[in-house]
Amino acid sequence: MPQTILVFLDPAHPAGRLADSRQPQLFATDLGATRGDGIFESLLALDGRPRKVQAHLDRLASSAELLELELPAAAAWLAAIQTGLAEFAQPEAIVKLLVTRGVEDAGQPTAWVQVAALPESSKALREKGLDVLLLDRGYDSGLAERAPWLLLGAKTLSYAVNMAALRYAHQHDADDVIFTSADGRVLEGPTSSVLIAHRDGAVKRLITTQLDSGILPGTTQGALFAAAKDAGWELGYGPLVPADLFDADAVWLVSSIRLLAPVNRIDGTEINHDAELTAELNALLATIR
Amino acid sequence: MPQTILVFLDPAHPAGRLADSRQPQLFATDLGATRGDGIFESLLALDGRPRKVQAHLDRLASSAELLELELPAAAAWLAAIQTGLAEFAQPEAIVKLLVTRGVEDAGQPTAWVQVAALPESSKALREKGLDVLLLDRGYDSGLAERAPWLLLGAKTLSYAVNMAALRYAHQHDADDVIFTSADGRVLEGPTSSVLIAHRDGAVKRLITTQLDSGILPGTTQGALFAAAKDAGWELGYGPLVPADLFDADAVWLVSSIRLLAPVNRIDGTEINHDAELTAELNALLATIR
Repeated sequence: MPQTILVFLDPAHPAGRLADSRQPQLFATDLGATRGDGIFESLLALDGRPRKVQAHLDRLASSAELLELELPAAAAWLAAIQTGLAEFAQPEAIVKLLVTRGVEDAGQPTAWVQVAALPESSKALREKGLDVLLLDRGYDSGLAERAPWLLLGAKTLSYAVNMAALRYAHQHDADDVIFTSADGRVLEGPTSSVLIAHRDGAVKRLITTQLDSGILPGTTQGALFAAAKDAGWELGYGPLVPADLFDADAVWLVSSIRLLAPVNRIDGTEINHDAELTAELNALLATIR
Repeated sequence: MPQTILVFLDPAHPAGRLADSRQPQLFATDLGATRGDGIFESLLALDGRPRKVQAHLDRLASSAELLELELPAAAAWLAAIQTGLAEFAQPEAIVKLLVTRGVEDAGQPTAWVQVAALPESSKALREKGLDVLLLDRGYDSGLAERAPWLLLGAKTLSYAVNMAALRYAHQHDADDVIFTSADGRVLEGPTSSVLIAHRDGAVKRLITTQLDSGILPGTTQGALFAAAKDAGWELGYGPLVPADLFDADAVWLVSSIRLLAPVNRIDGTEINHDAELTAELNALLATIR
């Protein structure tokens, strides 16, 4: 496996400062490490080109606003990403953008780009499909607007609950999770968006969950919706309840790294799938830059 | 301000490995930094002696169990704490115990002790008292038991929401926050427990919020309750609703570092306070080891 590449954003190094990932690079008093106080993005790069980089920079900016974090300029990110990808020099890579509130009392964020190899498990699940558990996220779907301090809709480094939900799924013979809200709506996966499809004669309808229900707006869902619309699909935006997942002609979890993964079973019950629609959406995904 | 001391728990160094806090000490791929995937405790040390250290080690163990983290033995923590306090050599110190899931794919936690100076602001608020906002935490008070993956009751490094709630309070001319549940119960502060008192003739009653409502069991609340019981107080454990805060003879937020801070105002409304009871509880707190 090629070595992970680190590029710190640093005004003294306009193209980013390369750092050795085999050596400690973060201060132990960084609020990212002690409080999960920061934000991130993960994206895929193919042949040295980051995919949907503007959508990820836009979402990073939106997360920064919710957390009131100062963010380096887009040009600095783009330069650091290019430095990292050139150094990594592999046809496929995961690129992470990370920003923390910085070292305690320093008043300056820590920002870096990490370029690493794609785990094989992630590719395998695209093919094999997913067994999924529905797990209660505890929040009602109207909370995001009422309670901005809960940071719903920000992609923060405080991901312990998402990690715990995935561990819970793995211990219960499942691969992934779909969160539901306290008021019974379908929300999202811990690291993915939920898509369902309906066929009605020649009409194909692609539906995702309601975007203002406190979920993270999916960059891949957004790009795929745009491509599907151009290809003649009808689009819909929830609200969805669990019964809608069982009624659908197909259900997928979609994300920037794993891309489109069909859902085979929910809570142990086999659901409908549609290999033709999966192939069609995969072809659309392949066109996204 | 004296320099922050770091002591890493390391089987090769039974008393802990001292490390320079002015140098980077954490790997950028540590899951503590990239996912907030870890746990911590904060405690006060006076004259080189950590207070209620067993209660903090017990809660750390309970957090570790909820997150399925492997934890170094208590003896290793105690040794590292002593090493850190000896090096810090100040009459007052904040001691933090931190454990992350470690570097990605390394399968080994990162654990360290941090010893640092007590911020002056924290001491000032003990005297001045607090203006507090009630903010919705979004969870209902029965959720912890139903949804273990939400890690309610674990003190995780994923503290971004707690930090955001405090920022929200500061922007709205308040000092601190009391979280309420979706079903209208009083829960806890972002870094403290809620206590209220009632006088009824000679009887003094000390009440905290219901412990099984998804809050973090407070080590200072627990120790103070034990001391108050010995001193003849009656004790109660909620459930409390916001009206109970306005009806009480006094309200405090209590925590390991700031200790007992009286609440002056809630959502801008002045509430009852009782300087005599505050003095009495402070005297009891001073007896806790």
